[in-house]
Amino acid sequence: MVERRVGLWLIGACGGVGSTTALGLAALARGLTPPTGLVTALPRFGGLDLDRPAAFVVGGHDIRQASLLSAVRELHGRSNVFDARLIEACAGDLEAWSANLRPGVAYRPNPVLAALADRPDFRPAATPRAAIDQVQRDIRAFQAAAKLDQVVVVNAASTEPVFEAGDEQQSLARLLPALDLPTAALPTSGIYAFAAIDAGFPFVNLTPSRGASLPALEELALMRGVPLAGQDLKTGETLLKSVLAPMFARRNLRVLSWVGHNILGNRDGLVLNDPANKASKVQSKEALLGELLGYRPQSHVSIEYIESLGDWKTAWDHVHFEGFLGTKMTLQFTWQGCDSLLAAPLVLDIARLALLAQRRGESGVMAHLACFFKSPLGVNEHDFGRQFELLERYVDPSA
Amino acid sequence: MVERRVGLWLIGACGGVGSTTALGLAALARGLTPPTGLVTALPRFGGLDLDRPAAFVVGGHDIRQASLLSAVRELHGRSNVFDARLIEACAGDLEAWSANLRPGVAYRPNPVLAALADRPDFRPAATPRAAIDQVQRDIRAFQAAAKLDQVVVVNAASTEPVFEAGDEQQSLARLLPALDLPTAALPTSGIYAFAAIDAGFPFVNLTPSRGASLPALEELALMRGVPLAGQDLKTGETLLKSVLAPMFARRNLRVLSWVGHNILGNRDGLVLNDPANKASKVQSKEALLGELLGYRPQSHVSIEYIESLGDWKTAWDHVHFEGFLGTKMTLQFTWQGCDSLLAAPLVLDIARLALLAQRRGESGVMAHLACFFKSPLGVNEHDFGRQFELLERYVDPSA
Amino acid sequence: MVERRVGLWLIGACGGVGSTTALGLAALARGLTPPTGLVTALPRFGGLDLDRPAAFVVGGHDIRQASLLSAVRELHGRSNVFDARLIEACAGDLEAWSANLRPGVAYRPNPVLAALADRPDFRPAATPRAAIDQVQRDIRAFQAAAKLDQVVVVNAASTEPVFEAGDEQQSLARLLPALDLPTAALPTSGIYAFAAIDAGFPFVNLTPSRGASLPALEELALMRGVPLAGQDLKTGETLLKSVLAPMFARRNLRVLSWVGHNILGNRDGLVLNDPANKASKVQSKEALLGELLGYRPQSHVSIEYIESLGDWKTAWDHVHFEGFLGTKMTLQFTWQGCDSLLAAPLVLDIARLALLAQRRGESGVMAHLACFFKSPLGVNEHDFGRQFELLERYVDPSA
Amino acid sequence: MVERRVGLWLIGACGGVGSTTALGLAALARGLTPPTGLVTALPRFGGLDLDRPAAFVVGGHDIRQASLLSAVRELHGRSNVFDARLIEACAGDLEAWSANLRPGVAYRPNPVLAALADRPDFRPAATPRAAIDQVQRDIRAFQAAAKLDQVVVVNAASTEPVFEAGDEQQSLARLLPALDLPTAALPTSGIYAFAAIDAGFPFVNLTPSRGASLPALEELALMRGVPLAGQDLKTGETLLKSVLAPMFARRNLRVLSWVGHNILGNRDGLVLNDPANKASKVQSKEALLGELLGYRPQSHVSIEYIESLGDWKTAWDHVHFEGFLGTKMTLQFTWQGCDSLLAAPLVLDIARLALLAQRRGESGVMAHLACFFKSPLGVNEHDFGRQFELLERYVDPSA
Repeated sequence: MVERRVGLWLIGACGGVGSTTALGLAALARGLTPPTGLVTALPRFGGLDLDRPAAFVVGGHDIRQASLLSAVRELHGRSNVFDARLIEACAGDLEAWSANLRPGVAYRPNPVLAALADRPDFRPAATPRAAIDQVQRDIRAFQAAAKLDQVVVVNAASTEPVFEAGDEQQSLARLLPALDLPTAALPTSGIYAFAAIDAGFPFVNLTPSRGASLPALEELALMRGVPLAGQDLKTGETLLKSVLAPMFARRNLRVLSWVGHNILGNRDGLVLNDPANKASKVQSKEALLGELLGYRPQSHVSIEYIESLGDWKTAWDHVHFEGFLGTKMTLQFTWQGCDSLLAAPLVLDIARLALLAQRRGESGVMAHLACFFKSPLGVNEHDFGRQFELLERYVDPSA
Repeated sequence: MVERRVGLWLIGACGGVGSTTALGLAALARGLTPPTGLVTALPRFGGLDLDRPAAFVVGGHDIRQASLLSAVRELHGRSNVFDARLIEACAGDLEAWSANLRPGVAYRPNPVLAALADRPDFRPAATPRAAIDQVQRDIRAFQAAAKLDQVVVVNAASTEPVFEAGDEQQSLARLLPALDLPTAALPTSGIYAFAAIDAGFPFVNLTPSRGASLPALEELALMRGVPLAGQDLKTGETLLKSVLAPMFARRNLRVLSWVGHNILGNRDGLVLNDPANKASKVQSKEALLGELLGYRPQSHVSIEYIESLGDWKTAWDHVHFEGFLGTKMTLQFTWQGCDSLLAAPLVLDIARLALLAQRRGESGVMAHLACFFKSPLGVNEHDFGRQFELLERYVDPSA
Repeated sequence: MVERRVGLWLIGACGGVGSTTALGLAALARGLTPPTGLVTALPRFGGLDLDRPAAFVVGGHDIRQASLLSAVRELHGRSNVFDARLIEACAGDLEAWSANLRPGVAYRPNPVLAALADRPDFRPAATPRAAIDQVQRDIRAFQAAAKLDQVVVVNAASTEPVFEAGDEQQSLARLLPALDLPTAALPTSGIYAFAAIDAGFPFVNLTPSRGASLPALEELALMRGVPLAGQDLKTGETLLKSVLAPMFARRNLRVLSWVGHNILGNRDGLVLNDPANKASKVQSKEALLGELLGYRPQSHVSIEYIESLGDWKTAWDHVHFEGFLGTKMTLQFTWQGCDSLLAAPLVLDIARLALLAQRRGESGVMAHLACFFKSPLGVNEHDFGRQFELLERYVDPSA
Repeated sequence: MVERRVGLWLIGACGGVGSTTALGLAALARGLTPPTGLVTALPRFGGLDLDRPAAFVVGGHDIRQASLLSAVRELHGRSNVFDARLIEACAGDLEAWSANLRPGVAYRPNPVLAALADRPDFRPAATPRAAIDQVQRDIRAFQAAAKLDQVVVVNAASTEPVFEAGDEQQSLARLLPALDLPTAALPTSGIYAFAAIDAGFPFVNLTPSRGASLPALEELALMRGVPLAGQDLKTGETLLKSVLAPMFARRNLRVLSWVGHNILGNRDGLVLNDPANKASKVQSKEALLGELLGYRPQSHVSIEYIESLGDWKTAWDHVHFEGFLGTKMTLQFTWQGCDSLLAAPLVLDIARLALLAQRRGESGVMAHLACFFKSPLGVNEHDFGRQFELLERYVDPSA
């Protein structure tokens, strides 16, 4: 029997999350690291027919002229993560996969991001359709060249400004004509999403950008039988909120205010330093508190780019709450986590579960993946424990 | 129809938790405070036939010559809690209930506690049986005088040293003869538990002391048809552990070490400063980490008496964990909570649910109350979210 | 011998700092509280001829229709500070002093502040000169009525937007003509400063507003023989910076970034929530890091209004620094201080030292008071230890 | 002119501090790292005739069979410090210097330390004198072989239990006879100190062990004209105390309690986990608070060995203080520093200043080095700012 081979196509492949995911895949495939941080490596997932790390081939888009290896080395140097010997042991894989990288979409790019673009082959497209065609050609060529049974497309690019949907995005019938005109019918993340879905590739959105979360694109996913997952990976401060806020709610302790300050020094932080991009992120981080508590306490979320921190995101949260007889009390926490290393194993988890879903014939939003996201598509549940039960029930419906 | 009247009998009535519970009952009955902090005030408990605050009469044992009012005033002065006007508005109730207080059991008391005893009527009993008889006479007299339909007995006394059970405590048949001899067959908390259960009163143990958690006493509870709850109320650091540790487990992040330092300045802290008493508490706080994670990381828990803090317990926890590719990360939190005010509403919750259980004819350990305790009787589940589901299912079995 | 009597004239008398200062004066004069927090109560100040608390009479300006007593009660209720009995014991003094309050200056007020004004006698002045005249009339009337030997004027009002000085403020000769025209020649704080100095009253600026820190006003102070002190009281996060940054500098540890987040819920916080007002404050807080370290690391200071905190300012600072062989390390601190209670004793210290200086015939900037301020007038030294030595040498030049 | 050559003899050479110091010297000599963390690299020390890094040769004693290179590699692996390329670039120096290592003193060793000893040539001495002779032979052989003008001896070994001095240690006359008998006249650190001083080598004690701080040894130092420095390097939590406590004192804020918890996972932590060894350390850390504040608030210091932290010492301090009108406030800090990298540059500083002092003909305790130590010999000043002024005045007496 021929072994299954699958592709992981990363949009923003040379970013921290993308390149760490690639390094992690190589290290796991070579047996050089335990699967710490991978949810799908927990015993309860043992019965699923998930793809082994060695079954994956990596490719992707990026707007910068970097290789996966150089990206990993830069992260190592700036943020003091990874063992130098591990990088060397996986260097060959990273270099081989870097040959699969193609220039990112250049249709009306966000100015902050465009300033980072330095690939000579980063060339403007005239319409959304032209950009979509180019993306599809790239991924299909990758699939053919590497002889892959399936490819999952993952948006690991930087956050883009808030995109307000209008009439055009409400149905496929209205959207299609607009794609042939030089309009702003889709943001960059939507172009990738459309391209992937339309070509039959499961699409995963790790960011707060719009991605596939537009009625027209969800319609397309059902039509093409493609599974979707998103959005905005839940890795740090928000993960903590999603376990702590339910605790306050169940104990009937009234949260008076919740203040969260996030500082970080990676490219994601740099892009978020731009107010338009930051708005998407803060919106995604703030909304869930009201859902979890049943009321909206005063809340404040900030994100600042502090260069010296590199990929180490530090969050300080101050929760002021009222207990019995009006007594005000405080919980503070400080989270010091390395963003790329928290995200990368989850990318593998989601990719594996998306590929499995496609093989099972499931399409549209995968609600059972809510536990991975800050703004889970198709699910109003933000309590991490309950979200995790959705996943457990998917894995074992009899439980 | 005559309204139901119920009694709350507090062992250690003039401690911080006992006196705050009494103040809270009075304030709630008079409509002077919202029920913040009461779990049973959440909407999902609306359908239960729980006793209203105004239905309660308070009595109890104490070894110190204090009144509920003086205890509340001392707490106000030392710890800057309660509104002075609220105390004055409830002073009459507290004084009336103080008349129901009786001297605590004086059978082989712990030296640290005995040193605090200053009631002139605190007199030694010759055998466990003599002490049990005295306790039962006190509570029955209270019930008769106040014309109460039911009385729930709650151990809110200071923590006692670890009590190692031997053969005598394994069955009622073996225990009964020992009670008539001047033996150490039961620790003080066990004497109260035996007295309450034997007389048909539901027994709740808020502390890590043994209480009713001995085979002979559980046998007695089933025989007498009495509900039991315990033990060691989960109000602060451990509550946080019980929501945070499952988060690490579900994300497959490996906890390397978990260090918790607790500082507090109330009488509970003073008693815990004695190593023998502290051992019970630390044991109760440490055990659950292994259960929640599935392995035992290095852990360290300390509790120190810092006088200036009064009732404000401050906990600093440092969690060191490993993520993907061996990356070590850190979560720290600081919890600043007022112990008595976190505990008191839960005392009311448990008392109401215990009285309800008795009316429903339930007896023995109330497993559905696991979410309130650090070492829940009869339940191995320590995940707060899952424990809370046990309670929700009890309230609404169809959910 | 007739005892000396002195006046403390507070601009913004009913704010947190003003009203707490009044309460403190009354409590100290009545012997109801120890002088904790008063620098001038330290033994080394014992030899100075400072005014006793009982020698003080309080008056002031405010734009709100509040009394000192109501202001103190509001602070008690919102922020859980002060003992209720202490307030009652001093209520008579506070009410008597409230009769000395006059409406604040209404010349081109800052919109955020104007929105808070609710005194019916708060009436617009046509020119700076008209406003100055009104202020002088008020203070002189107070001095005459209370038979005071001296009066010190203290700006305890909310922070105003950054005032950029032009040519007019460079000398008295240029400034004077502008005062008679409806110009913006002086910000509100400058109008008070001019009025006080011109009338011979020592002027103290507790805020980052301009106050007397304009060449024309310093000229006037020397001409009139009036001592000046300012500006921006150093009570919390910045105080810590001024002892911690020198430590890093002396150990040659390189500060890479210093992030400070401040959250607070008092009226000062509300006013600072307006970006124009906040700019003054942040500027004052950020400048000193470069001075203390000798280079400017990346720094970020935020101030947010979080209502539930009341007067409790909480600051979280994250200091990232590099040690030997490029090793990055971290110091974090959390400061939970009550702003008004940190500031009030310093107001008394500065007032006493200003009155003493005037009696000694000193005029112009009092450089020996640098240790009290974030942006000390006339001194470049920001190291708290060295600033304190300036004060010690003033007290004892032989030391 | 022949360049001066000097020796650095490290007792405990293969510990974290010793081996990091060696790596740092090599890296500085090769120009591979900036002198961050070296106090003597600050501009104000530019005029002193200090030895350049390249002038140093390293040797030392250790009881374990390790090389400087293996020690550095272990630290790199366990604690994620040092750049792997830096280690390789300095490997030759470290290997060459490792040839200068000799077995540590084996006279009545502390059981915890003895258990770590694994050198086959670690052989017991019969008397203190025999041990001293051996130490002197080792260092003199090093000096001769490497043709060194001077050698400074630095105790960087693990902390030993508290040594209570008796009559024998009060004068040289009483001590000398005892050295020839199998007595406990000197602890291990005292044997090294005696050997160094007696042979004319400046002696520096980085630890809280007794070292040279005995009257008989100070007498010997003056007799032999040898400079002394110590004791217990001030690198983290105590350094912060020595800048923060003076701040509270100068502001007349009353410290109610100061709690400090230290967790660390290096060999120092392992040795300190033994209660006898820990006592020396805690004693050294606690004493200074009373000196700095002028009164002794309740204080608590703990040190625990948490393996996963490696060389990263994390300290959490909780300072509870009272301000004006009895208001209780809080300062908390968390210090995350790498012990060896904080200590190593200071070792170089002290070594350079000790060698300079010897050339200048100074002998006995070097009081100007107080700023480096938790328990500075010969100085009661614990305020870091004032201690630093002692050093500045030594460097520039006219300042």
